[in-house]
Amino acid sequence: MKFAVVGTGVIGSGWITRILAHGHEVIATDPSDGAYERMLTQVKQNWPYAKEMGLSEGASLDNLSFTTDLKSAVKDADLIQENVPEVESIKDAVLKEIDFYAKPSAIIGSSTSGIMPTELQKNLKHPERLVVAHPFHPVYILPLVEIVPGQNTSEETVIKAEEVYESIGMDVLHVRNEIEGHIADRLMEALWRESLHIVNDGIATTEEVDKAFTHAAGLRYAQYGPFMTFHLAGGEGGMRHMLKQFGPALKKPWTKLVAPELTEDLYEKVVRGSEATSQGYTMSELDRKRNEFLIKVKQLAEEYWPKDTASMKKSKQHQKV
Amino acid sequence: MKFAVVGTGVIGSGWITRILAHGHEVIATDPSDGAYERMLTQVKQNWPYAKEMGLSEGASLDNLSFTTDLKSAVKDADLIQENVPEVESIKDAVLKEIDFYAKPSAIIGSSTSGIMPTELQKNLKHPERLVVAHPFHPVYILPLVEIVPGQNTSEETVIKAEEVYESIGMDVLHVRNEIEGHIADRLMEALWRESLHIVNDGIATTEEVDKAFTHAAGLRYAQYGPFMTFHLAGGEGGMRHMLKQFGPALKKPWTKLVAPELTEDLYEKVVRGSEATSQGYTMSELDRKRNEFLIKVKQLAEEYWPKDTASMKKSKQHQKV
Repeated sequence: MKFAVVGTGVIGSGWITRILAHGHEVIATDPSDGAYERMLTQVKQNWPYAKEMGLSEGASLDNLSFTTDLKSAVKDADLIQENVPEVESIKDAVLKEIDFYAKPSAIIGSSTSGIMPTELQKNLKHPERLVVAHPFHPVYILPLVEIVPGQNTSEETVIKAEEVYESIGMDVLHVRNEIEGHIADRLMEALWRESLHIVNDGIATTEEVDKAFTHAAGLRYAQYGPFMTFHLAGGEGGMRHMLKQFGPALKKPWTKLVAPELTEDLYEKVVRGSEATSQGYTMSELDRKRNEFLIKVKQLAEEYWPKDTASMKKSKQHQKV
Repeated sequence: MKFAVVGTGVIGSGWITRILAHGHEVIATDPSDGAYERMLTQVKQNWPYAKEMGLSEGASLDNLSFTTDLKSAVKDADLIQENVPEVESIKDAVLKEIDFYAKPSAIIGSSTSGIMPTELQKNLKHPERLVVAHPFHPVYILPLVEIVPGQNTSEETVIKAEEVYESIGMDVLHVRNEIEGHIADRLMEALWRESLHIVNDGIATTEEVDKAFTHAAGLRYAQYGPFMTFHLAGGEGGMRHMLKQFGPALKKPWTKLVAPELTEDLYEKVVRGSEATSQGYTMSELDRKRNEFLIKVKQLAEEYWPKDTASMKKSKQHQKV
């Protein structure tokens, strides 16, 4: 497997680190002034963490090369990862150039956070080989990659892409339908917008919002996502009980986000989905796993949480925001 | 300090466990059939985890007593924690009864998730001693408690309440302004509603939504909240750079939640707030702390994450939801 990384900012350098750590060669390219030095600095900073996570055989910084010439970077690559700025005109121009020089059998993965793959592939000669492959910062530590095919992506491309990303230690989430922001960023964006509203409305400071999350829900979400968290909060009745108890809250102004109607179909999807994720564990076994995890993650987080600042301490004395 | 717990379901039993673990006596009360046995079962199940977190001197299950008579439970208590069902008429009736029998100097803390304290205190003789004191499940592990005063809560009550909850190992978040769902549940509700939309619109299964969160953002949020996460994603420029880069996404349909306008005032609050939370650490020091934490929390989470189910594996083969 030959890897090319196009665009070497924070995300590009993260990809380079992950690929190198898995023992592969990478050719990186970026036309900006000083790009090489910045990329090298970042990859060297990332490398100790990649080491701590465990390097594959043959993994070495010596397997990295850099060129400002896009053609020579991509022409022999099997996977070309594109990470140029999140501006459609720039993405379009660079992807057309990649498309022009790449082997027909190459996979082109775009790191875009928000642009849909059908949009990205619309001007390509070989649109069938493009997928969105959206990673998370820091790319060399976090395992998730969202693979989103466009209308013109071939099934073969999706299968090959999943294999390639798994071979560099990633957990692939295949997104069935294109949607703005894919899945993970939609969840984060909802959280982010609600946080902005809370600050904008003078309810809390940014520091308080952060603490409200890290000291409670944030600890739980490292283990179980929004559905499993509610499933476990329902006691023996699980999600069924939870929806009875907190379903009515969906009609209350508990967030500025309007909820979907809790139809029978949605109800069933949510209940059965949570039961499937439980994999036959009883609620008390799930509770036990959660408690054991939470105690450990809380101890760990306490070492790393920021301390309350002076303004936070003052806020307890009832200052206005 | 004498503690009374009114309502002994999952949350009430969690409070009882936490209070006992900190070496205090508790009188619990609940009029439902079988409440005592259910409560005792739960507290005994919780106890090993309380032990693992470290018991205070004198902590013992022997310090727990139970009565079905509300009056005798609350009449001598200094802190009365109310955890009855989340139905306003029930809360009202029980709080009036507590108010009638409690010492004038007692603090009444309500565990309500969503009802505002001004609402809860409106029919009390001594409204000044009521605050919302909203914990998170499991109460005996998670440290956050949101203290929300109503319009008629005295400053003295808030100060005393904060001291009491801190004395049982909690991190107090003083919520300055009453708002439906307080702060933490608003954030969770935004996430929950967006998750429901994604499932309802056929974009992903509950299992995929959970994984999209746990394998990326959820790991980060155990350490840094929504603001600090974006501050760190901005590289050397921090939140300033981030808002320039991702501010425009606020106008895009990346979630069903409409964003507030990014005015200069909001911009400054967000940037300065994130800088305050950073406490003088440089971006690269914050990056280092994040990486060290993430590697450890990821290793920990991997032991506890649910494995992909058959339907999850199939979904990679492009099944429709």
